[in-house]
Amino acid sequence: MLNQFLNSIADAGRDLWQRRSGNGRRSPDALRGLCDDLLSTRGEASGIAVARDVARTYDTLDETDRLALFRILNDEFAADADAINAAADAYRDGGDLDTFLALARSVEPPRQEFFRRLNMAPGGTRTIVSMRAHLLGLLRDHPELKAVDADLRHLLGSWFNRGFLTLERIDWHTPADILERLIQYEAVHRMDGWDDLRRRLDRDRRCFAFFHPALPGEPLIFVEVALVNGLATSVQPLLDRSGEPDDPVGADTAIFYSISNCQEGLAGISFGNFLIKQVVHELARELPGLKVFSTLSPIPGLRRWLAEQADLTEPEREAAGRLDNPDWQHNEALAQAVRPVLMRLCARYLVDAKRGDRPADPVARFHLGNGARLEQINWMGDSSANGIAQSAGMLCNYLYDLKTIERNHEAYANSGRVTVSSQVKKLLG
Amino acid sequence: MLNQFLNSIADAGRDLWQRRSGNGRRSPDALRGLCDDLLSTRGEASGIAVARDVARTYDTLDETDRLALFRILNDEFAADADAINAAADAYRDGGDLDTFLALARSVEPPRQEFFRRLNMAPGGTRTIVSMRAHLLGLLRDHPELKAVDADLRHLLGSWFNRGFLTLERIDWHTPADILERLIQYEAVHRMDGWDDLRRRLDRDRRCFAFFHPALPGEPLIFVEVALVNGLATSVQPLLDRSGEPDDPVGADTAIFYSISNCQEGLAGISFGNFLIKQVVHELARELPGLKVFSTLSPIPGLRRWLAEQADLTEPEREAAGRLDNPDWQHNEALAQAVRPVLMRLCARYLVDAKRGDRPADPVARFHLGNGARLEQINWMGDSSANGIAQSAGMLCNYLYDLKTIERNHEAYANSGRVTVSSQVKKLLG
Amino acid sequence: MLNQFLNSIADAGRDLWQRRSGNGRRSPDALRGLCDDLLSTRGEASGIAVARDVARTYDTLDETDRLALFRILNDEFAADADAINAAADAYRDGGDLDTFLALARSVEPPRQEFFRRLNMAPGGTRTIVSMRAHLLGLLRDHPELKAVDADLRHLLGSWFNRGFLTLERIDWHTPADILERLIQYEAVHRMDGWDDLRRRLDRDRRCFAFFHPALPGEPLIFVEVALVNGLATSVQPLLDRSGEPDDPVGADTAIFYSISNCQEGLAGISFGNFLIKQVVHELARELPGLKVFSTLSPIPGLRRWLAEQADLTEPEREAAGRLDNPDWQHNEALAQAVRPVLMRLCARYLVDAKRGDRPADPVARFHLGNGARLEQINWMGDSSANGIAQSAGMLCNYLYDLKTIERNHEAYANSGRVTVSSQVKKLLG
Amino acid sequence: MLNQFLNSIADAGRDLWQRRSGNGRRSPDALRGLCDDLLSTRGEASGIAVARDVARTYDTLDETDRLALFRILNDEFAADADAINAAADAYRDGGDLDTFLALARSVEPPRQEFFRRLNMAPGGTRTIVSMRAHLLGLLRDHPELKAVDADLRHLLGSWFNRGFLTLERIDWHTPADILERLIQYEAVHRMDGWDDLRRRLDRDRRCFAFFHPALPGEPLIFVEVALVNGLATSVQPLLDRSGEPDDPVGADTAIFYSISNCQEGLAGISFGNFLIKQVVHELARELPGLKVFSTLSPIPGLRRWLAEQADLTEPEREAAGRLDNPDWQHNEALAQAVRPVLMRLCARYLVDAKRGDRPADPVARFHLGNGARLEQINWMGDSSANGIAQSAGMLCNYLYDLKTIERNHEAYANSGRVTVSSQVKKLLG
Repeated sequence: MLNQFLNSIADAGRDLWQRRSGNGRRSPDALRGLCDDLLSTRGEASGIAVARDVARTYDTLDETDRLALFRILNDEFAADADAINAAADAYRDGGDLDTFLALARSVEPPRQEFFRRLNMAPGGTRTIVSMRAHLLGLLRDHPELKAVDADLRHLLGSWFNRGFLTLERIDWHTPADILERLIQYEAVHRMDGWDDLRRRLDRDRRCFAFFHPALPGEPLIFVEVALVNGLATSVQPLLDRSGEPDDPVGADTAIFYSISNCQEGLAGISFGNFLIKQVVHELARELPGLKVFSTLSPIPGLRRWLAEQADLTEPEREAAGRLDNPDWQHNEALAQAVRPVLMRLCARYLVDAKRGDRPADPVARFHLGNGARLEQINWMGDSSANGIAQSAGMLCNYLYDLKTIERNHEAYANSGRVTVSSQVKKLLG
Repeated sequence: MLNQFLNSIADAGRDLWQRRSGNGRRSPDALRGLCDDLLSTRGEASGIAVARDVARTYDTLDETDRLALFRILNDEFAADADAINAAADAYRDGGDLDTFLALARSVEPPRQEFFRRLNMAPGGTRTIVSMRAHLLGLLRDHPELKAVDADLRHLLGSWFNRGFLTLERIDWHTPADILERLIQYEAVHRMDGWDDLRRRLDRDRRCFAFFHPALPGEPLIFVEVALVNGLATSVQPLLDRSGEPDDPVGADTAIFYSISNCQEGLAGISFGNFLIKQVVHELARELPGLKVFSTLSPIPGLRRWLAEQADLTEPEREAAGRLDNPDWQHNEALAQAVRPVLMRLCARYLVDAKRGDRPADPVARFHLGNGARLEQINWMGDSSANGIAQSAGMLCNYLYDLKTIERNHEAYANSGRVTVSSQVKKLLG
Repeated sequence: MLNQFLNSIADAGRDLWQRRSGNGRRSPDALRGLCDDLLSTRGEASGIAVARDVARTYDTLDETDRLALFRILNDEFAADADAINAAADAYRDGGDLDTFLALARSVEPPRQEFFRRLNMAPGGTRTIVSMRAHLLGLLRDHPELKAVDADLRHLLGSWFNRGFLTLERIDWHTPADILERLIQYEAVHRMDGWDDLRRRLDRDRRCFAFFHPALPGEPLIFVEVALVNGLATSVQPLLDRSGEPDDPVGADTAIFYSISNCQEGLAGISFGNFLIKQVVHELARELPGLKVFSTLSPIPGLRRWLAEQADLTEPEREAAGRLDNPDWQHNEALAQAVRPVLMRLCARYLVDAKRGDRPADPVARFHLGNGARLEQINWMGDSSANGIAQSAGMLCNYLYDLKTIERNHEAYANSGRVTVSSQVKKLLG
Repeated sequence: MLNQFLNSIADAGRDLWQRRSGNGRRSPDALRGLCDDLLSTRGEASGIAVARDVARTYDTLDETDRLALFRILNDEFAADADAINAAADAYRDGGDLDTFLALARSVEPPRQEFFRRLNMAPGGTRTIVSMRAHLLGLLRDHPELKAVDADLRHLLGSWFNRGFLTLERIDWHTPADILERLIQYEAVHRMDGWDDLRRRLDRDRRCFAFFHPALPGEPLIFVEVALVNGLATSVQPLLDRSGEPDDPVGADTAIFYSISNCQEGLAGISFGNFLIKQVVHELARELPGLKVFSTLSPIPGLRRWLAEQADLTEPEREAAGRLDNPDWQHNEALAQAVRPVLMRLCARYLVDAKRGDRPADPVARFHLGNGARLEQINWMGDSSANGIAQSAGMLCNYLYDLKTIERNHEAYANSGRVTVSSQVKKLLG
């Protein structure tokens, strides 16, 4: 009986939504119906039934339909300019709480309520996160949709507040569907299947991820850590799956060698800062022998930056040029010849190259912004094809030194100043 | 090491916050420090450590301190009127996305970010919910703080979106701490301890509650249901703990006889609508024999309304007057004499008495607003002292008839029209 | 289809079992059918279906039927004497593994297989445990059934091996149905409902229980512990629910003031020894400040023993006689007069009164057998009516001193020697 | 303090156990000490501490030490022949319960108590299961140890009673460590890593396993099921990981195509019978469309049996001989020529070849013993190298027909008669 009821609501909806235009796609009217329905009093009365059907219908849309839907949301469910201007006038005149609240209401586009109601569907949060992923994919060609993205980002930023996330340890007891996602989402050092993964979850490794209760089984971001002795300078030994795992209790250093975001739809909503700091906390509690917490990080923009530099000295230009030799890194004489020049250039890139007043390199921007210190630059830290291609094989360590992290962050936040070790300072000359 | 770090941050904070004025309370400066700290770059850098300390400090504040804090949030962390007006001007001139977003940002008071950061503390959501409870308690004497309440309500409304709530069945296997809260929060028919509760969780009863992942173990709202045959007209048999439980499989009617909100701090954020409809869903799935879903509801405002009516007929005035006799309900002759008059008055109250264009009775407003139908008025439905006091012992049934619920809701939403059974119509004459 | 299948087996069985003799009870034939069925090849083929029906049928038997069933199991499903004797002859002649195993098989009564198959029913273990509880109730009047009990005890002893039990902490987050069982099973210091229980689960109390995976939600045995400073000498302050809970972190002493078995059907299968030692372990890990682990124990047999002593000295007889005065304990002069005599008698009872070569007092036998030391005798340790009645209000402390527990146990096991403190030695004179 | 206590016990033990003979192995005295210690009163007093140390020490033993330990258990912890004979005499004379129980006790070797106490160690059950696996490996060369195995099998048979097992569905949400064990334990159709596994856990497949609470994460036995339409006659399509999964709701047939035991140490303790029947139950409940439950089974002994037959007819010998041609199965003419002869021989092997009075083929023995019917023989049912090698590529279906399963089982149990379909009867001629 109830199901009949729910189905009858659904059917009514489907009739509308399934009305398609000639070419097999949804007509704009049908898509507009999606929005109207959910915002109507019927959408209110029938609880989650309408939300569920809108979510299911969305899943069947192709890219053209989705673009059409976002356009409708953008054009027809925006805040009303006249109403805003009127409310602004009233506020300027009145200046009291009521006019203020009226103004605040007037700048909230009705599509925010559309998304809030859609979120009530079973799996609604998941649908909204994938809507945003789709929308981001469309933005380059359709920049006018940025207004819709602003609403989605506002809502998702509020809903994915750090206070609602749970930190979970990932290991070999974790369900396979979650582990499979790690293989798929790993963005820094690609995993070639389950054996690679298994090495990264062995007893001298740690992996942690943030989850949100509304996205069960879906990691938001995860970090991979190696427990070693002394600062790791090269990533290949950490990934080598033939290696025997070490005893984690004897380790003095935790190396954060990979951190990957998993949800395109949550781009721009930052979790990494919290993740690293909370994992430091967890590790310090589990393994009191750990004294040093450091990353071993890629330098993704180095080669591109190098190619763009017009003011290199002659030896610098020569060294940079030699990187065009195929397999230069296997030519020991050549590699040793360019090494000092390139390491100096690398230090300069990390410290001095800016985008605005922040480091140009995105990884540097992230860790230095968190208050870490640029500790060391490692020649042949990543000898993989990808490592050679993006940074001439160099990696660097950002050190999370608990005693200085806050001071570093303040210096960075207030004046853009980045903190570097004496070793890096020497490189900079 | 890490703990030292976290503690040193905490200690620094405490030094500030614990600076107290002469009378043993926090100085306004110390309280202002709470807000500044959390919004500073230090608050950003140290992740959850500062948030945790603000939350802990808040827990130690007395009412005077809390009032002082809310005043600071109200006065010093409000949106800036000049900035709003400037942004409104720019928007009026430009009308593009950037000026729109700038205006939207300008109307968001900085204290919203204060609450968002506070939410990152362990248990932060709980702290914020209790802050709002405290604030609501202060509003009557300090109506100027409504602006702070508007922000809290906005945030909590977004965070407690139905999509994030989980429906849980409550029974005798539920942890005792949760059950204890039911005893304490039950607002309609008081429970006198564990034996009363146990009857309400027996096999011919059902109880469901909404929970939020950030408030584990804390019911937000719960509903109590009796599985019976035929529409229940009196609540005392349902509560009687000496009764033998019936076989739920044979029941044809589910009576929702009590629904209670648990969190003062979430006042005005509505869950009841969703709860009832989802529980109907759950029950229909578990027990296909159920054909009727109805409440047995109090009429809390009847006697007060009656006392205020100036235009009663003479027999009505007389009947109303007799309610002043102590224990009138035990005088069978008297009770039978007033019964028809009072039932007619009751129907009139429920259907015609309005606050604005909505029913004056809050329970009627809730169920009729949900699309339920006023089905029946029951003489001596609640013979308890409380029942006599608020509604001369009458209760009524609101019927959730799945076939008409949506139509009823639309009629109500669009024109304020409420739906009543033919039986009630007859009473209205 | 499958259910039809299962039901058809069940129905066939029911036909047989439900044949009843004239007076409304099961006929012996029907009861014998229970046993035959389960041991037949049909019982083998139909997996758990027959076992389930036997279990359900058992639940419907009244005491007369149960007695009849146990008699059938005793008489008709016993080991075969001729077969045993023949197997014993073959073993004496052969002495090899085959004749040994044949002999071992011949002494196993077929009813053991009956119980093993019954255990396959859903909830089968629970049924078997309650069968043994019923059987124990019948043994006094029907001692011939001891042979059946020997089999049940053998099986249950094997199945409830310590290695299969889990230790669970019980607190206010524990499901209400389990807590309710504690109230009901508490055997030492009666709980008067939920408020008493709550005090015993407060933050300066601990409660632990053993569970078996096949009896979910059913505690087997539980112990209640108070975290205090110094050896507790009186139980009333520990039970007083008006008291404010103390900070457990500051406690130096854990007092085990109540330990109760929950399952009659597991009588004689000892868990208490393991429970106390593992709880000591858990508490030492949680609260490193704890230095002393001791019981505060009843002396259940003292008054009875006293009444039976023929060789008391004149002052002893007089003191013992005064206990017959009603409310003697409230007569301060009288109480002080008898105190030294009674405490000496109490020490003598605990240390010298024997049953065989073990202490006559069952609680003393248990703790001293575990290797504990009799530490102290406490005047008016339990001033409740029950305490006065069984031990003139005295309680004693058995100390679990980890350094000596093993030595004490060996002395006790080898020579029956019990360990007492110097204080108790002095009492003994 | 407690840990000191536990360690001091452990250390005392280790001193003894670690005394080694010259060649680096444990001396017999040290191994004997393992047994003595656990059975001593110290073993009793110190609860699980001694058991834990014995378990840990066992884990460090090499095969020579293990053999020495099993010999000590066999020779020195056996039942005492003189005591048995004396008890048998007393029983013959007395015949009462006491002499019976004394006899029963005398035939129980003390090593049973050794194992029961060892079981109290954390992970003790796991240790005992692996002891038995080791022992089974030694039996061929040391058949005198069968007596120890009899005790282990007796205990494990009692502890792994069906009533203590839980049936768990295995799917892609199952923890990776458990899934990895499936890959490793799969005994019928080898899995080549995670992609193979994933196909077998897709939505038109089911996998179930039995677990025991004392071996968490360790499947005891598992079965793999394909949901298809019509009786599957070939296994390769079921394993093909490129295939798209079908909709399970439309399936009418459940094919049990692989069943594997996981624990060598539990050999001879049968779970398969229960597993299949309970999985039939689960599937029938989940998917009411299923009408047929059948295996698709290997015929492991066919080729070996064929090679041993002396009385084949000339055409039969010729056909059998052709199987020696390499890749005969790819020679279509040859394969079609031998097909009718070989299928007849296969039917004869399954139905008439006996070991004792039971089918010679172990898989036939298992399913026909369960009451299944031999339904069909499938030419080229398994074209893998292994399928060709063991059964000339043939597989067969055993049908679990719920209406006849019990009758079939009884016929089999009472007279060894096996049930075959009319199709197979025709093959038999």
